[in-house]
Amino acid sequence: MTSAGPGRPRSQQPSRPGATARDEILDAAAELFTTHGFANTSTRSIADAVGIRQSSLYHHFKTKDDILEDLLEGTVLAGLAFARAVAALPHGEATPGSRLHAVALYDGTQLCSSRWNLGVLYHLPEARGDRFARFLADRQELRNLYGELGAVLPPARTAAASGNPGDLAFRIVESLVNLRADGMATPDSPLQAADAGLILCGLGNELPAIRGQSSALIARLG
Amino acid sequence: MTSAGPGRPRSQQPSRPGATARDEILDAAAELFTTHGFANTSTRSIADAVGIRQSSLYHHFKTKDDILEDLLEGTVLAGLAFARAVAALPHGEATPGSRLHAVALYDGTQLCSSRWNLGVLYHLPEARGDRFARFLADRQELRNLYGELGAVLPPARTAAASGNPGDLAFRIVESLVNLRADGMATPDSPLQAADAGLILCGLGNELPAIRGQSSALIARLG
Repeated sequence: MTSAGPGRPRSQQPSRPGATARDEILDAAAELFTTHGFANTSTRSIADAVGIRQSSLYHHFKTKDDILEDLLEGTVLAGLAFARAVAALPHGEATPGSRLHAVALYDGTQLCSSRWNLGVLYHLPEARGDRFARFLADRQELRNLYGELGAVLPPARTAAASGNPGDLAFRIVESLVNLRADGMATPDSPLQAADAGLILCGLGNELPAIRGQSSALIARLG
Repeated sequence: MTSAGPGRPRSQQPSRPGATARDEILDAAAELFTTHGFANTSTRSIADAVGIRQSSLYHHFKTKDDILEDLLEGTVLAGLAFARAVAALPHGEATPGSRLHAVALYDGTQLCSSRWNLGVLYHLPEARGDRFARFLADRQELRNLYGELGAVLPPARTAAASGNPGDLAFRIVESLVNLRADGMATPDSPLQAADAGLILCGLGNELPAIRGQSSALIARLG
C-alpha cells in the first residue's frame, strides 16, 4: 500500500485506469459497488483497493454518496451532451429519424463500453433520494430529449397505440444495462437497440438510409 | 408487537396482506428490500415490521437469502407457468403472434401489479450468485420461451437486423420494472410493451386481430 497523501506524488505505479488518484478511486468504487454492492462497500475498502489511505480518499470525496453521485453522473453526461448537440442542430441539417437513431446509438454505446456496468445501480433505493437530484435531473433531461426527438417523427400507424415511441427507444437503450448484467451484450447490441427504437417509430423501412446519416452525425458531433 | 411463536395463533390482526405469517414476512421484506435496500435490511427489522419475534421468523426462513429467493421467484413463476402453457398449446390452437403477445402481456401485468416492485432487485450483486440458481434458471427459461415464440414468426424485413425479436420483447417487458421505479407506469403500460414487442416482430399491422386473440388466450389459460 502506498502512503501517498493529498497532492504528493504516489510512490508506485497506479494499478487502475485513470490519470489521477481521483479517477482510480472512482474505478475502484465502481468495481466494488457493482460486484459487492453499494451498501456492502465501505470507503475503507475503496481506499484499500486503490492502495491509498482512507484520509487521502476523503481529500477527494467527503462521503460514499459523493462517489456514487460522480459514478451515476458518468453514465449519463456524455449521452446527454451529445443529445443536446443533436437537438440543437438547425432544422434541415439532419432528418428526425437520424437524430433519434444517433442519440440512441451514442448513448447505448456509452452504456455498453464503460469499464463497469454502473447502470445496475440506477434502481438502488440509496440512489433515489434528493441527494442524487442532479443525476436524476440529468437522466430525466436525456429521457425528455428522446421523447422530443420521437414526437416530431411522422405518426406511425403501427406505433400509435404504443405510447411515446421516443420513450420506448430510451427504455430499450437502458435495457442494455440488463443485457450486460446478464452477460448477453455483444458489440452489435447498441446498434440493435437504436434500430429497434426506429422500428417502433414506424421507420423500419428507412433504416438503411438512417443508419448512414446517424453514423455521420456521430462522427461530426460525438 | 405480538408474541406469537411458531404455529401459535397470533394475538392481533395481521397488518399486512397475506393469509399466513409467511406471507406477511414476505410482504414486509419486499417493502424493506425495495425501499431501504437489501443489504440495509436485517431479519430483525423484518420481524419488527411484521410484529413477530425474530425467532418466529427463523421458523419460516432460515436466512435473509431464503426470503430474497422466494421474492425473486415470485416475480417470474406466474409468467413462466403461463408461458409454458402457451408454448404447449397444439399447433393451430393459437397464432404465433398471439402467443408472444399473450405471454408478454401476462408477464408485464404481473410485473406491474405486484405490491412491491421487486424487479429492482434483479441486478443486485447479492442476487447473482449460485445461491439463486433456481430463480436465475426460471428467469432464463422464461426468456428462452419468449425467444422461441419470436423465432417461429415469419421473418420480418425490418426486424431482421435487430437481433432476436422475441428477446427484445422480453427486454421491453422487463423494462416495466424501470418504468415503475421511475413512477411512470400506467395501467396501459403492459399492453404497450406487448404491442411494442409485436411491432418489433414486424406484426404491427396485425395488432388489432392479435390483441383479441391474446386476450382470449389469457382468459383461457391465465
